[in-house]
Amino acid sequence: MKNKNKAVWGGRFNNATSKIFEKIGASIDIDKRLYEEDILGSIVHTQMLTKQKIINRERGNKIISGLKKIRSEIRKNKFKFNKKYEDIHLNIEKRLFTIIGNDAGYLHIARSRNDQVITDFKLWIKKASKEIVKNLNNLIKNFLKKSAGNIHTIMPGFTHLKNAQPISFAHYLLAYVEMFKRDKQRFKNNIENLLENPLGVAALAGTTFNIDRNYTTKKLKFSHPTNNSIDTISDRDFVTDFLYAASVCSVHISRLAEEFIIWNSDAFGLIKLNDRIVTGSSIMPQKKNPDQLEFLRGKTGNAFGNLFSMLTILKGLPLSYFKDLQDDKELVFKSFDQTKYSILIFNDILKNFSVDKKRMFELANKGYTTATDLADYIVIELKVPFRKAYQITAKIVNYAEVKKKRFDELSIKEIKKIEPKLNEEVLKIFDLKNSIKSKKSYGGTSFENIKKMINKYKKELK
Amino acid sequence: MKNKNKAVWGGRFNNATSKIFEKIGASIDIDKRLYEEDILGSIVHTQMLTKQKIINRERGNKIISGLKKIRSEIRKNKFKFNKKYEDIHLNIEKRLFTIIGNDAGYLHIARSRNDQVITDFKLWIKKASKEIVKNLNNLIKNFLKKSAGNIHTIMPGFTHLKNAQPISFAHYLLAYVEMFKRDKQRFKNNIENLLENPLGVAALAGTTFNIDRNYTTKKLKFSHPTNNSIDTISDRDFVTDFLYAASVCSVHISRLAEEFIIWNSDAFGLIKLNDRIVTGSSIMPQKKNPDQLEFLRGKTGNAFGNLFSMLTILKGLPLSYFKDLQDDKELVFKSFDQTKYSILIFNDILKNFSVDKKRMFELANKGYTTATDLADYIVIELKVPFRKAYQITAKIVNYAEVKKKRFDELSIKEIKKIEPKLNEEVLKIFDLKNSIKSKKSYGGTSFENIKKMINKYKKELK
Amino acid sequence: MKNKNKAVWGGRFNNATSKIFEKIGASIDIDKRLYEEDILGSIVHTQMLTKQKIINRERGNKIISGLKKIRSEIRKNKFKFNKKYEDIHLNIEKRLFTIIGNDAGYLHIARSRNDQVITDFKLWIKKASKEIVKNLNNLIKNFLKKSAGNIHTIMPGFTHLKNAQPISFAHYLLAYVEMFKRDKQRFKNNIENLLENPLGVAALAGTTFNIDRNYTTKKLKFSHPTNNSIDTISDRDFVTDFLYAASVCSVHISRLAEEFIIWNSDAFGLIKLNDRIVTGSSIMPQKKNPDQLEFLRGKTGNAFGNLFSMLTILKGLPLSYFKDLQDDKELVFKSFDQTKYSILIFNDILKNFSVDKKRMFELANKGYTTATDLADYIVIELKVPFRKAYQITAKIVNYAEVKKKRFDELSIKEIKKIEPKLNEEVLKIFDLKNSIKSKKSYGGTSFENIKKMINKYKKELK
Amino acid sequence: MKNKNKAVWGGRFNNATSKIFEKIGASIDIDKRLYEEDILGSIVHTQMLTKQKIINRERGNKIISGLKKIRSEIRKNKFKFNKKYEDIHLNIEKRLFTIIGNDAGYLHIARSRNDQVITDFKLWIKKASKEIVKNLNNLIKNFLKKSAGNIHTIMPGFTHLKNAQPISFAHYLLAYVEMFKRDKQRFKNNIENLLENPLGVAALAGTTFNIDRNYTTKKLKFSHPTNNSIDTISDRDFVTDFLYAASVCSVHISRLAEEFIIWNSDAFGLIKLNDRIVTGSSIMPQKKNPDQLEFLRGKTGNAFGNLFSMLTILKGLPLSYFKDLQDDKELVFKSFDQTKYSILIFNDILKNFSVDKKRMFELANKGYTTATDLADYIVIELKVPFRKAYQITAKIVNYAEVKKKRFDELSIKEIKKIEPKLNEEVLKIFDLKNSIKSKKSYGGTSFENIKKMINKYKKELK
Repeated sequence: MKNKNKAVWGGRFNNATSKIFEKIGASIDIDKRLYEEDILGSIVHTQMLTKQKIINRERGNKIISGLKKIRSEIRKNKFKFNKKYEDIHLNIEKRLFTIIGNDAGYLHIARSRNDQVITDFKLWIKKASKEIVKNLNNLIKNFLKKSAGNIHTIMPGFTHLKNAQPISFAHYLLAYVEMFKRDKQRFKNNIENLLENPLGVAALAGTTFNIDRNYTTKKLKFSHPTNNSIDTISDRDFVTDFLYAASVCSVHISRLAEEFIIWNSDAFGLIKLNDRIVTGSSIMPQKKNPDQLEFLRGKTGNAFGNLFSMLTILKGLPLSYFKDLQDDKELVFKSFDQTKYSILIFNDILKNFSVDKKRMFELANKGYTTATDLADYIVIELKVPFRKAYQITAKIVNYAEVKKKRFDELSIKEIKKIEPKLNEEVLKIFDLKNSIKSKKSYGGTSFENIKKMINKYKKELK
Repeated sequence: MKNKNKAVWGGRFNNATSKIFEKIGASIDIDKRLYEEDILGSIVHTQMLTKQKIINRERGNKIISGLKKIRSEIRKNKFKFNKKYEDIHLNIEKRLFTIIGNDAGYLHIARSRNDQVITDFKLWIKKASKEIVKNLNNLIKNFLKKSAGNIHTIMPGFTHLKNAQPISFAHYLLAYVEMFKRDKQRFKNNIENLLENPLGVAALAGTTFNIDRNYTTKKLKFSHPTNNSIDTISDRDFVTDFLYAASVCSVHISRLAEEFIIWNSDAFGLIKLNDRIVTGSSIMPQKKNPDQLEFLRGKTGNAFGNLFSMLTILKGLPLSYFKDLQDDKELVFKSFDQTKYSILIFNDILKNFSVDKKRMFELANKGYTTATDLADYIVIELKVPFRKAYQITAKIVNYAEVKKKRFDELSIKEIKKIEPKLNEEVLKIFDLKNSIKSKKSYGGTSFENIKKMINKYKKELK
Repeated sequence: MKNKNKAVWGGRFNNATSKIFEKIGASIDIDKRLYEEDILGSIVHTQMLTKQKIINRERGNKIISGLKKIRSEIRKNKFKFNKKYEDIHLNIEKRLFTIIGNDAGYLHIARSRNDQVITDFKLWIKKASKEIVKNLNNLIKNFLKKSAGNIHTIMPGFTHLKNAQPISFAHYLLAYVEMFKRDKQRFKNNIENLLENPLGVAALAGTTFNIDRNYTTKKLKFSHPTNNSIDTISDRDFVTDFLYAASVCSVHISRLAEEFIIWNSDAFGLIKLNDRIVTGSSIMPQKKNPDQLEFLRGKTGNAFGNLFSMLTILKGLPLSYFKDLQDDKELVFKSFDQTKYSILIFNDILKNFSVDKKRMFELANKGYTTATDLADYIVIELKVPFRKAYQITAKIVNYAEVKKKRFDELSIKEIKKIEPKLNEEVLKIFDLKNSIKSKKSYGGTSFENIKKMINKYKKELK
Repeated sequence: MKNKNKAVWGGRFNNATSKIFEKIGASIDIDKRLYEEDILGSIVHTQMLTKQKIINRERGNKIISGLKKIRSEIRKNKFKFNKKYEDIHLNIEKRLFTIIGNDAGYLHIARSRNDQVITDFKLWIKKASKEIVKNLNNLIKNFLKKSAGNIHTIMPGFTHLKNAQPISFAHYLLAYVEMFKRDKQRFKNNIENLLENPLGVAALAGTTFNIDRNYTTKKLKFSHPTNNSIDTISDRDFVTDFLYAASVCSVHISRLAEEFIIWNSDAFGLIKLNDRIVTGSSIMPQKKNPDQLEFLRGKTGNAFGNLFSMLTILKGLPLSYFKDLQDDKELVFKSFDQTKYSILIFNDILKNFSVDKKRMFELANKGYTTATDLADYIVIELKVPFRKAYQITAKIVNYAEVKKKRFDELSIKEIKKIEPKLNEEVLKIFDLKNSIKSKKSYGGTSFENIKKMINKYKKELK
C-alpha cells in the first residue's frame, strides 16, 4: 500500500503527518463544541446547492439525512471523535462518507474549511453573546432587587477608600447596573458585527459555482453576505471584540469583588457572607473566607490573557488564513465559560450576603463625611466663595479631629469660635440622612432619585 | 507664616507635599492638552450657575471673561504651567484667582475635580474619535483610488503565504477597506458611549445646589446627563474602549505593513517603494529599507501596551476615584497620536509605491493556483463528487510538479494520461484571467464584482 | 442536627457550599497533576513529625503506608477524584481517612494547605524547568547537526527582509543556538529561585510545633528553608519567572517559524518541507501548507497570555493567601506543555526540511549584497574615508540597477567610468564566497569561524 | 543634478524622505539619552581602529578629540539636536563632520549603526540595572530600620483579608525584604547577560577589517565579545529581561501600596500618613488621600504595558534588524524612570507614616486569631489528631461568636461545657503575645526569629 496519508488531501501527499503533530495539532477536543453550528451550516449549504441545481435533489436529501443522523449521534454522546481527522469539520465529513458513501464527496462543492469554520464560529459567538446578554439582564434584575431593599441603608461613599460622603447603599449598587448596561451594549454592538454571512467565499477568492449567498444568509439568520472574500477569511475582529467585551465585564465584576472582600474584612465588617459562599481553612478553625469573590476577581487575569493572546496572534499576520488562527476558538470558549459562570456566581453572592446596617451607618458617620455639605451651606448662608467656605470648613474639621470628636458631637459654641456667623441651624447639616436627601441633582444619591432610577431601570428591562 | 501647603486644600494640611512627589506625581505636562475642554467646561458650568442664580450674573461674567483670557494666553503660548499646581484644572484655577481675585472661588461651587476631569476627558476623546473617523475616511478613499487603478492587476492570493488562487490586487486592497470600515464603526460606537454628560455629579454623590445638568448637557453637546454619580466618577470604560479600538486598527495596519514588507523583499519583488518612503543603511550602500512599514508594524506593540496598562489599572479597583486612574490620559494621548500618525503615514505609503505587474502575474502563475478551478471543472464536466475531482486534480498537480512544468505548460495528451475523459477545453481553465472572471459569487474576486464594490464603497462615503 | 458541609472545615459551617461554586471553583481537574509532589511532601512531612516525636512512629508508618497506597492507586489510574473535595490535597486527605481511619487526622499537624500547595508546586516547576533545559539541549544538538551540514550553504543575510550581505546558512542557524542558550540560562536561574523550601511555614505565621525544616529541606532536595513565612505564602515570583522564561523561548521559536514560513513561500523557495510537516487544503488540491510552523508561531500568543494573566492576578494583591492565586497552576501547566511540545515539534521540523542550495545562492547574489565589501575595499585601496567609499559604491549600485545587472555582470570598464582608480582586482570582491570568507572578525560569518563555533558549542554541551 | 536627501545614505537616493516620517519616525528625542554611551563607544572603537592600524594615529586622535568636544557640548546643553538626522548616532556623526571635516568619515569603518546602537543600549541598561540594585539596597535598609522599630508591634496577619493569626508588624515588613531581595537578584542576573560586547559585528555578518573585539570588550568593561553576529543584531532578550524585572518589582510595590491604602481607610485605621504624603480634595474639605500609594499601585499598569509592547514587537520578527525594534529604548527608559522613582517615593512613604499600635493590637484580637494555637494546644494536651482538635476548636469559636465574645472574654466554665478535658491553662493560649512567641519554627513570626533575621539581612547588605 502506497499512501499512508488518510487526510482528505491524502492524494497529494507521500507521507503521513508526523505523529506528534497529529496529536498536538489536532483541534477536535476544542472545536467539537461547534458541532451544532457546523451541521446546520452544512445542511443549509446543501439546501442551497440543491436549490441552485448544483447537486440533484436526491443527493441533497441523502447528504442532509446523513448529517442529521450525525447530529443525533453527537447529541446522544454516541459519536466517536478522532484526532486523526484533526477537527470537527473533517470528523463529520469522514463519518458522512461512512454513512452515505461517496455522495458525501458532493458536500464540499463551493465551500472551503476556511469559510466553513468562520460560519460555524460566528454563529456560535452570536449565540454566546445573546446568552451573556440574557445573563446580564438577570444579574441586573438581582441588583435592582437588592437595591430596592436598601434605599435607606446609609453607607460611607469612598474616594481613595477614605470616607468621603454619605450615600445610599442602593446608589452604590446601581453604579454596577450602569456598568452592566454598558456591558450589554458592548455585546449587542458585537452582534451587529456578527450578522455578515461568511459562507460561500470558499478558500479566499469566491467560487466558480453559481451559488446563492443570499439564500444561505437568510436560512442561517444572518443579515447579509460578507463583501470581500479575502477579508472574510482573514478577519478575526469578531473574536477580539468578544474577548474585549468579556474583559471589560470581568473588570466590572472584579471591582465589586474587590470591594466586597474589603468590606468583609474584620475591620470593615460592612457585609456578612452566608456560609454557602465562604470557605474554611485547613488549619485555622475560625476562618470563613470569601473564596468566591476572590475567584471572580482573579478570573480577570484570564480574561485579559485571552484577549492579549488573540491580539498577539493577529498582529502582523498577512492575509488570509494561517494555522496560527486556530487558537481563536479555545480562547473564546474559555472567556465565554468564565463570563457566564462569573455572572451566575455573582447572582449567587447577591442572594447570600447581608448588610450590617448599623455598622455601615456608624462608619458613614466617621471621617467628617458631611464636610462638603457644610462648605456648601456656608457658601449659601455666608455668601462667600466656595474656596473661602472650604477653608472655614477645613478649620472646623481640624478642630474636631484634635478634639477627637465627630461633627455631630460638636457644640454650636465650639463652631462659633471658629466661625461666629454660623448659628444652630448648622448642626442639621451633620445629619447623614439630610445629607443624602439633599443630593437631588440628577444622578445624585438622594433617596428620591434612587427610587425613580430603580423604576426607570425596571422599565428598560421589560 | 505657618502653613507651607500652597494647594487649594492647603488650609487642612500642616506640611507641604513631599518634593519628589510634587515633581513626579504632577500631571500637568500631560493633561495641559485638555485646556480647551477644561475652559469650555468651566464656562458652561459658570453659565449654568448664573442661570440657576447660584451665583450672580456680574460674578459669572467676571469668571467667564477671566477664563477666556486664560484660554487666549494658552493658545498664544503665553501661559506658564506650574508643576506645583499639579494639573490643568488647578493651574487654571490659580491663574483665575490672579486675574479676577477671590471671585474665582465661586467657580468650584457644585463641582469637583472628579466630574470636571471626566467631562474634559470625554469631550476630548469624542473630538479625537471623530478625527480618527475622518482620517479613516481619507485612508479608505486612497485605498479605493489605488484599487480602481488595479482592478486588472493579477496577483497570487495566498493562504499560509503559499500561492493559493489568482486574485485581483484590487480585491486584496478592498479587504482592508472592510477592515477600516469596521474600525470606523468601532470608534462610532464609542462616540455613542461618550454622549453622557458627567458634569454635575460632583465628588461622587451629587450636589446640594440646585444645578441644571440638562442645561450643561445641551451646551456641551452631550445627549443626556449620566444616571449615577458614583459610576460616573469610577467609570473608565470609555478609555479602554478607545484604546481597544486603536489596538484593532493598529492590528489591521500591521497586517498590511507585514505583507508589504514581505512583498518588498528581493525574493518577492511584487512592489517597489519610492525613495521617499525607504531609508538607507549606515554601512551597506545598496540598501533601501522599508522603515516606514516597519515603524507601522512595530507600533502595534505600543497600542497593545497602552490597552493593557489601562485594563491592569482598572482591575480590582474599588469605586470611586483613585489616583491610579490618572495615567488614563497619557495612555489615550499616546494611542491617539500613534493612530493618527499611522494613518497619515499609510496615506503617504499608498501614494509612494508601485506594483510590478509583470512579476505579480508571473508569481500568480506559479504554484498551480488554478487547481481549485480545475477540480470545480471536473465536478461539472465529469459529474463526479468534489472529493473525487479533488483527487484527480491532485494527481495532475503531482505529475506537473515532477515534470517541473506549470499547468499552462501541460499538453492535453499529458492530462489525458491521468484522466482520459478530459478534453482540450480543460486548458482554458489554466488561464489566470478566466479563473478570476469566474469568481462571480458575491464577495468573490471577479473583475465585475470589484468594479461594483468600488462604486458601492464610494457611495457609502458620500 | 446534621451538618451538610462535608469539607474538612465542616464543623464550623451551617450550610453547604453553593452547588455552582462547588462545580466551578474546584481545582481538582487541574491540580491532580501535582499528586506525586503532594504525596512525597506528605511522606516527608510525616517522617519529620515522627523524627521530632510530634507523632509516634507507629502512627507515622501507618500514614506513610496509606499515602503510598494512594500514590499507587493514582499511578494505576484507579483513584477516583472528586470535585466535592475541591483539590488534590483534600482528595488525598479524604482517601487517607478511608484507608487508615482517624489517624489520618495527624497528618495535618504543623502544616496548612498554604505551605503544602507551594511546596508541591515548587517541586513540580523545578522538575518541569529541568525537563525543558533537557529538551533545549536536544534542540541545540539538532541545530548543531544541521549547521554542520550547511557550513558552505550560502544564503542572503537579511536586514529589513531585504538582501543585505551573504552569509552561511549555518551561521544563521547558530544564531538560534545563542537564543536557546539564553533560554536555558533563564530556566536555570529560575531553578536557583526554586531551591527554598516552603514546607513548615504553615498558614502564614509559622507553627508552635517543634518542627525541623532543615530535615524536610534535605529530604525534598531543596537547599534551605524560606526565611519569612508571610512572604512564603504570598510569593508567586517563581510562577511568573517560569511563565516569562517560557514566553521568551516562545518568541525565539516564533521568529524562526516566521522566517521559515516566508522562506517556504513560492516566491522565496529557499526551503522545502517534507510532507510529514505540511498539511493540505480541503478545497485547493495543490496546497502544502506549513501548518506546524504556523502552530509554533501562534502559540506565542498563549505564552504571553499566560504570563499576563498571572501578572494581572498578582498586581495589587495584599499579603498573604487569596483564592485568586489558584489559577497559577493551570497557567503554568499550559505554558509548560506548550513549551515542551513546541520544542519537540521543532526537532521534528529540523529533521524534515531541506535547503534548496541553488536557489539560496542565486538569491544571495541579488540585491548587491557585496556592496559593503566593495566599500571596505575602496577604503583600503583608495585610502579614503568610509563615508567617501560608501558614496562611490552607491554610485556603482545605482548604475548597475539602471542597467539591470548584478555586480558580477559589470565589466571593469563600466566600473572605471564611475571610479577610475579601481582596477580588475575589484571584481573578486563580488564573489560571495570571498565575501563570507573575509568576515573573520570574532562572531562573523566566515566558514572558519563557524567551524570553530560549532566545536565550541559541542564541547559546552558535554 | 542636486540630491535632496541629506542622510548619510543620500548618494543612493533620488528623493528626500517624506516630511511626515522625518518628523514622526525620528528617534532623537528619545535616544539622545544614550549620548554618553554612544560617544564612549565611538572613542573606544576609534582607539581600536588606531591600535590595529586601520586608521592612522593622527586621524584617530582628531576623531577622538572631536568626539570629546561633542560630549562636552551635550553635557553643557549646548548641542543642537536635529530631527533631520534621525537619531543620536547620526546627530553626533554629522556634528563630527562639522568639527573635524572629512576625517569624520573614517569613524564608521568596520561598524554599523546596528552594532553601535546595541552597544550603547547594553551599556546604558547595565548602568541602569546597577542603579536600581543600589536603590533597592537603600529601600531594604529603610525596611530594616522600620522593622527594627516594630518588632513588638502586634498586628493581625491576614489571609483572604480576614484576620488569621497574630503576627509582628516587623515580620510583615520583612516579607517585602524577601521580595526586594529577589528583585535585586533578577536585575543581577540580567547584568550577567549584559556582559557580552556587541561592538564589531557590524551590519549583521561581521567585518572584513582586522578588528580586535577583545580590546573593545575590555575597554568597555564587557566580559567577552558576542559569539554570533546575526544573533547580536537581532537579540533583544536583554530588553525584555529588564522590562520583566521592572514589572515584578512593580508588582511587589503594588501589593504593599494596596495594603497600605486599605490600612489607611477609616475602617481599618492601622496606619497614619503624614501630610507630606497625602493629598486633599478640591471639594471635600476633610479629605486626606493616599495619592502617592495609589500612584505607585497604578504604575504597575505601565510596567506591564511596556513589557508587553516589547514582547509583541519581537513576536514573529525575522532576523536580523527591523525598524520595529526602535521602540525598545523608549520602553526601557520609561520603565527605568518609573522603577527608580517608585523606589524613591517608597522610601519617602516609609519615613512618613506611623503605626497606630493600639488599634493594630485591638484588631489583632478580633476574629479568633488564636484558634490555630488552640487547636495545636488541644492536639498536644488531649493527644487527639489535628482534625479532631480542629473540630473542637470550631465549636468553641461558634459558641463565642454567638455570644459575641472574644476568646479572651470566655470563662473556663464556658469552654469546659464544650470540651470538659480542658483546664484553666488553656486561657493563656488566647494571649496574642504568647501566640507570636510560640511561632519559633524557622521563618515564623516569633520575636526572637525576627531579631535574628534583621541581623542576618543587615550582614548581607554589608
